[in-house]
Amino acid sequence: MTTTIDSGTVDNGVNVAHLLGARELITETPELGKFTWRATNTWLGGTHSRGEVEKFYGLSDEQSHTKKFTFDADHPPQFAAEDNGATPVEIVLVALGGCLTGGVASVAQQRGIQLRSVKATIEADHDIAGILGADPDVPNRFTDVRVKYEVDADASPEDIKALVAQSQKRSAVFDLLTNPTNVTVDVSAV
Amino acid sequence: MTTTIDSGTVDNGVNVAHLLGARELITETPELGKFTWRATNTWLGGTHSRGEVEKFYGLSDEQSHTKKFTFDADHPPQFAAEDNGATPVEIVLVALGGCLTGGVASVAQQRGIQLRSVKATIEADHDIAGILGADPDVPNRFTDVRVKYEVDADASPEDIKALVAQSQKRSAVFDLLTNPTNVTVDVSAV
Repeated sequence: MTTTIDSGTVDNGVNVAHLLGARELITETPELGKFTWRATNTWLGGTHSRGEVEKFYGLSDEQSHTKKFTFDADHPPQFAAEDNGATPVEIVLVALGGCLTGGVASVAQQRGIQLRSVKATIEADHDIAGILGADPDVPNRFTDVRVKYEVDADASPEDIKALVAQSQKRSAVFDLLTNPTNVTVDVSAV
Repeated sequence: MTTTIDSGTVDNGVNVAHLLGARELITETPELGKFTWRATNTWLGGTHSRGEVEKFYGLSDEQSHTKKFTFDADHPPQFAAEDNGATPVEIVLVALGGCLTGGVASVAQQRGIQLRSVKATIEADHDIAGILGADPDVPNRFTDVRVKYEVDADASPEDIKALVAQSQKRSAVFDLLTNPTNVTVDVSAV
């Protein structure tokens, strides 16, 4: 049974009016949409490092989060490391889940679908023979990534599927994983 | 001046003997190298969600970190959101830095290079006209990612560059960003 509610009566906590306003603004003035996201990474010893996120560029100006976010990365004891943080490959899965779920909430708000709960499990198959240099024919990256959503919402199963499909269609991290991006690495010896 | 030190006298906190042992083991028994990394994501309201990382599969068995790692993702106030966490796209940059830096430490240990400090800035250009649906010709993902390392180590600038290049060559997250990976998204309405 489809029980889609008028978007004025649902509240998923997303300010869709603002997002639609931003879309209009960026359509008129494309320069406003050109963002540069930033992170820093500092080695703390062994495979342990700390990532920090605070400033970014966008809307034709320097911008800042309201606070700095920090993320420790490390390897687990199974690799004789200290497990001071998740592995970088797990952090990629965290980013994918966060991106798709943020999209689900935004699209649900726009479509007038009240969400009750959204949960996802994200799994990635990874033959580590590549990164260890055990087999030159094995790539360093995952072979497959599987995301499984369980969504409880005031909508039919078909509308819920369409909701997640639309989030996937507009997801930056989904696109980053499924398509190639140019990455350059420069080094200064100090 | 090259001042490369014998690997027995340097200590970057990486157990290279263990990693080389793992490589030998996985070369002999490839099944041991087949890992499945996992994360969960739970919607908390608006674009705010929480990622959790704890269990994974590898070495032919279920494995666990020593603790659970949690990561909040959200959008910033510039998108009329509550800024309860970094954006998912920034979390991808965090993962890239963590992966390359862990690799730098590991390769330095293997090459007998004592590290003093390793810092990276990671920047990604992102035209958000794509994710906002403002321009169908703009992809959802970044256009370019730039990583800049500053490495202080007991080695020549050439050896330091080669060190970072080798980390890049074996980096899972670098490979994930620069090559396409298959991602499937399934949905259950509950």
